[in-house]
Amino acid sequence: MSLTAEFLEQVRQASEKAFPFVERCGVRTLKVEPGYCHLRMPFDGNQNHIGSMYAGALFTLAELPGGVVYLTSFDTRRFFPIVKSLNIRFRRPAMGDIEVEARLAADEVARISAQAEAEGKCDYSWTLELKDATGETVAIAESLYQLRRIGQ
Amino acid sequence: MSLTAEFLEQVRQASEKAFPFVERCGVRTLKVEPGYCHLRMPFDGNQNHIGSMYAGALFTLAELPGGVVYLTSFDTRRFFPIVKSLNIRFRRPAMGDIEVEARLAADEVARISAQAEAEGKCDYSWTLELKDATGETVAIAESLYQLRRIGQ
Repeated sequence: MSLTAEFLEQVRQASEKAFPFVERCGVRTLKVEPGYCHLRMPFDGNQNHIGSMYAGALFTLAELPGGVVYLTSFDTRRFFPIVKSLNIRFRRPAMGDIEVEARLAADEVARISAQAEAEGKCDYSWTLELKDATGETVAIAESLYQLRRIGQ
Repeated sequence: MSLTAEFLEQVRQASEKAFPFVERCGVRTLKVEPGYCHLRMPFDGNQNHIGSMYAGALFTLAELPGGVVYLTSFDTRRFFPIVKSLNIRFRRPAMGDIEVEARLAADEVARISAQAEAEGKCDYSWTLELKDATGETVAIAESLYQLRRIGQ
């Protein structure tokens, strides 16, 4: 799949305003490449009652890459993804903006697509690290997705 | 610990506006009792791009009872809680308002308090079911909290 710079920019912009819950958080998509994205959740507006970033904002930052990477990896006319589970471990308080990077390798994309084509669905997972501005990991998220063939 | 009706009502109201992220979701605390709460996440405003409730709203509904039940269970002058991890499994699309009930038994509260008093901290966990208006479970969340002694 060859993606134009215009398409990647469309995905980047759309991902920040995909639906109201996301827009309200103020999340920013810093970079989108085929199979890759880099997102930032702002600290402002997402603090909890003790002044660190709320767990729900961290969850949201961990979950959104699933959709962004889907858009730049899979044939969206043939397949759609669902999130089956997400396990997030909180390692330390998040006291500023938090970023996440996610990547799905091209051979993994090919494997998932082939299995979803043949069997109608294919599970896939990744582990993402949510990091603060100093590079410290504040949370680790293991996500399990399933790619489904449309019409299945 | 004996709690007045006024205190429980204060907790109920405060839990809906604990911080902006929660307030923006429009979550409602339907009932608060000692060691118990019942919350509802509205469908309106929390849909994702395919018209079901966004995973982040379901996560938030699953996470908030930890704070509400803490306030009606533990001595807030001596202890505070942190969430260590939350594993949420999505069983089916949430197509309307979603509710959750959480309860921590009095003997469990006593055990956790005693250990946190003696050792400075105590882990505790529960599994919550998020249900739609028909009683169907749309998601299951396993949360691990830790009660910590203040000044520890």
